[in-house]
Amino acid sequence: MNAGENQSLLTDFYQLTMAQAYFREQQMGLATFSLFIRTYPPNRGYFVSAGLQDVLEYLESFHFDQGQIDYLASQSLFSDDFLHYLVDLRFTGQVFAIPEGRIFFTDEPVLELTAPILEAQIVETYIINQIHLQTLIATKAARCVQAAGGRPVVDFALRRTHGSDAGMKVARASYLAGFVGTSNVMAGRRYGIPLVGTMAHSFIASFEREIDAFRAYVASFPKNAILLIDTYDTLAGARNAAQVAREMAEWGQALIGVRIDSGDMATLAVEVRRILDTTGLKDVKIIGSGGLDEFELERLTAADAAFDSYGVGTKMGVSADAPWADIAYKLVEYEDRSVLKLSTGKESWPGEKQVFRQVNSKMQIEKDIIGLRGEELSGERLLEETMRGGKAISPYPKLPEIRERFTAELAAVPKSVKKLRDPGCFAAEFSPKLKALRDEIVKKTRG
Amino acid sequence: MNAGENQSLLTDFYQLTMAQAYFREQQMGLATFSLFIRTYPPNRGYFVSAGLQDVLEYLESFHFDQGQIDYLASQSLFSDDFLHYLVDLRFTGQVFAIPEGRIFFTDEPVLELTAPILEAQIVETYIINQIHLQTLIATKAARCVQAAGGRPVVDFALRRTHGSDAGMKVARASYLAGFVGTSNVMAGRRYGIPLVGTMAHSFIASFEREIDAFRAYVASFPKNAILLIDTYDTLAGARNAAQVAREMAEWGQALIGVRIDSGDMATLAVEVRRILDTTGLKDVKIIGSGGLDEFELERLTAADAAFDSYGVGTKMGVSADAPWADIAYKLVEYEDRSVLKLSTGKESWPGEKQVFRQVNSKMQIEKDIIGLRGEELSGERLLEETMRGGKAISPYPKLPEIRERFTAELAAVPKSVKKLRDPGCFAAEFSPKLKALRDEIVKKTRG
Repeated sequence: MNAGENQSLLTDFYQLTMAQAYFREQQMGLATFSLFIRTYPPNRGYFVSAGLQDVLEYLESFHFDQGQIDYLASQSLFSDDFLHYLVDLRFTGQVFAIPEGRIFFTDEPVLELTAPILEAQIVETYIINQIHLQTLIATKAARCVQAAGGRPVVDFALRRTHGSDAGMKVARASYLAGFVGTSNVMAGRRYGIPLVGTMAHSFIASFEREIDAFRAYVASFPKNAILLIDTYDTLAGARNAAQVAREMAEWGQALIGVRIDSGDMATLAVEVRRILDTTGLKDVKIIGSGGLDEFELERLTAADAAFDSYGVGTKMGVSADAPWADIAYKLVEYEDRSVLKLSTGKESWPGEKQVFRQVNSKMQIEKDIIGLRGEELSGERLLEETMRGGKAISPYPKLPEIRERFTAELAAVPKSVKKLRDPGCFAAEFSPKLKALRDEIVKKTRG
Repeated sequence: MNAGENQSLLTDFYQLTMAQAYFREQQMGLATFSLFIRTYPPNRGYFVSAGLQDVLEYLESFHFDQGQIDYLASQSLFSDDFLHYLVDLRFTGQVFAIPEGRIFFTDEPVLELTAPILEAQIVETYIINQIHLQTLIATKAARCVQAAGGRPVVDFALRRTHGSDAGMKVARASYLAGFVGTSNVMAGRRYGIPLVGTMAHSFIASFEREIDAFRAYVASFPKNAILLIDTYDTLAGARNAAQVAREMAEWGQALIGVRIDSGDMATLAVEVRRILDTTGLKDVKIIGSGGLDEFELERLTAADAAFDSYGVGTKMGVSADAPWADIAYKLVEYEDRSVLKLSTGKESWPGEKQVFRQVNSKMQIEKDIIGLRGEELSGERLLEETMRGGKAISPYPKLPEIRERFTAELAAVPKSVKKLRDPGCFAAEFSPKLKALRDEIVKKTRG
């Protein structure tokens, strides 16, 4: 979460008006809400769980300060006894969740939360906000990593992410999903992600001649220089970079690489590679960037383009082809009564649930079964208890661990489901007990 | 900007490596950067300027604290004298900008910044990040207001905006562009935006019967209740709401409205209206929500659907059909030398600029001319000096003022340019002097 500012008012107003109505009715029973994605956005066949750590930190620190309560009082809507009740309100509930870095599918609860209904309701907005963004981005980033076919990919998205919080979460979610670094310095610091940077066109343009800019840069970074060669003419830029690399060699230094940020990338890379190779600069890498996404990366990989690594920005950072997902946080149980909603196209499944994952002999995901939490079905249980009594249960895994778990997990996803276009539709099954419960509740609700 | 945390490291790593190279070369001359959008996203014909206030606040408070500098030192890339230099670094530059709430078009600089190049470079990332997001959202929100044809629209986007900062900025940008309120409580507090809230399906589902939920809610909010009627069956929900409204009338109270959040909205609204009217509840409003955007709103408006107002969420809050714009911050002048880049498809225009707007006798925008800042052309000058010597020049206008300016401004946009689909492409002209300068610089640069 964002350091510094109390985000407990980052909620929808109706959460607070409902809270007052619950309070007035003294309807303070335990409620379980289930967070899940209803449908796949275009070309998506799986989701990568991300955002849980922020949710747990938010829940642990949840409280209203006096300034916030004074603001609510100024709305002339809330009763004094309710406002007074808010002063000591903390989150006291329990959370089950699919850990970050794991793969999940539509309808599967990625998080279930049980708490007095008033608490469970007020925290809804922030929970959806964070899991939605981070899962969306981790999924998009995973697709880019897939498409890059083994070439390292770094996050260049910060300037066009939707605000500062997104900039931070995009760096983290993309690293979690296999990116190797970020350009976002603040994210590097907060999350321990390796920093990556080259130079901008403005740096080149501020010098009279491109080659002067190259010389000035390598003088400052003799061990870490990557030169941007497309400001005026990419091939002339490559020849200037080669010239500087030869000068560096005389001092026993080596140029790390050059970056191409525009034009016909695959063709330019071939020609730049040739210029470098014929000058004896076989170790100088070529980095590609500029409007890349998984589809363009797939094309470059298929063409075996002469890039050694990629910088991926905007289209990953806003999940451009799928900037939102149909994620919902639904009441599934209240005071031991299973409930659902029947709104057209938004029907939900009642009861506290668990997802049971079965793998085949090749360790590929074969079947997920969504059952009731109390059921004993074969398969690994994906949802783990991560918070009890408002306290996170165990030390949270470190980001590199989550990243490793993701890499292992992605290997278990069947190829057809991982396809970048029109993937096979992986749908979890519902257990017979869950189906029977749903039928019963539907009948009761309609009756 | 986000309160609480120093965001000066929210920048791309290359800004800092370039800064060290500038510092080492003592290349500390004044640079002017120009921020503009290269092309229209699909179906866009204009942009609404937004985000300037955050940029000015960020620039005024820009500095690195010791912890941040220690982190940079840990990268083993930066020299001690450079790190020492960063301790006292502040933003000392000048900013010209098109004020928030004004309309602008492609190629027009929405902001120009002049400062020692090192400063101008480090602040690039945050400036783009904020203007990009807020302009994108203000533009999307303006389209929704247009499409709603006079019916009030409120922001319900927070749960699916890209993170917390976006949630705040979406509330502000949509209010700026004519929305009448937000569900985001924190944004209501920070920006003074009216709060709007109804109730959620979970509130209904937590009661045994829908009508019990309605009764409980109006008991808490006898003057402000809007009942959500689609949890189980919209028409049955409408009859329950009507029943509760009649009960309220006996106590001298009035139900404000009902909300429909799913299904065939236009048809349901007609039937719900009939149920309410035949029960003498002509004053009870119908609010529509659920997956709305300007295209769906346009359809409802064209059908003269029986909605009195709308809640618009996700698709506005992520600018779903255009989640990013091709915005760029380019060096246009360095030490009195005009510069440009020639990268394929990303060519820029040199020199410090001004936009001159000419209106016709009906006060409609007739022509925008992009000229050099020193030129005397007829028309209103859109860019205003908003910061000098690192200090904002005058008290910043209040949000309601900006909102009024926007409303007046939108009225001046020709109808063809405001069309929601395939709008007329409004392209500013370039002044002869600017064209001549560009030709000269291109020749010199290629030569």
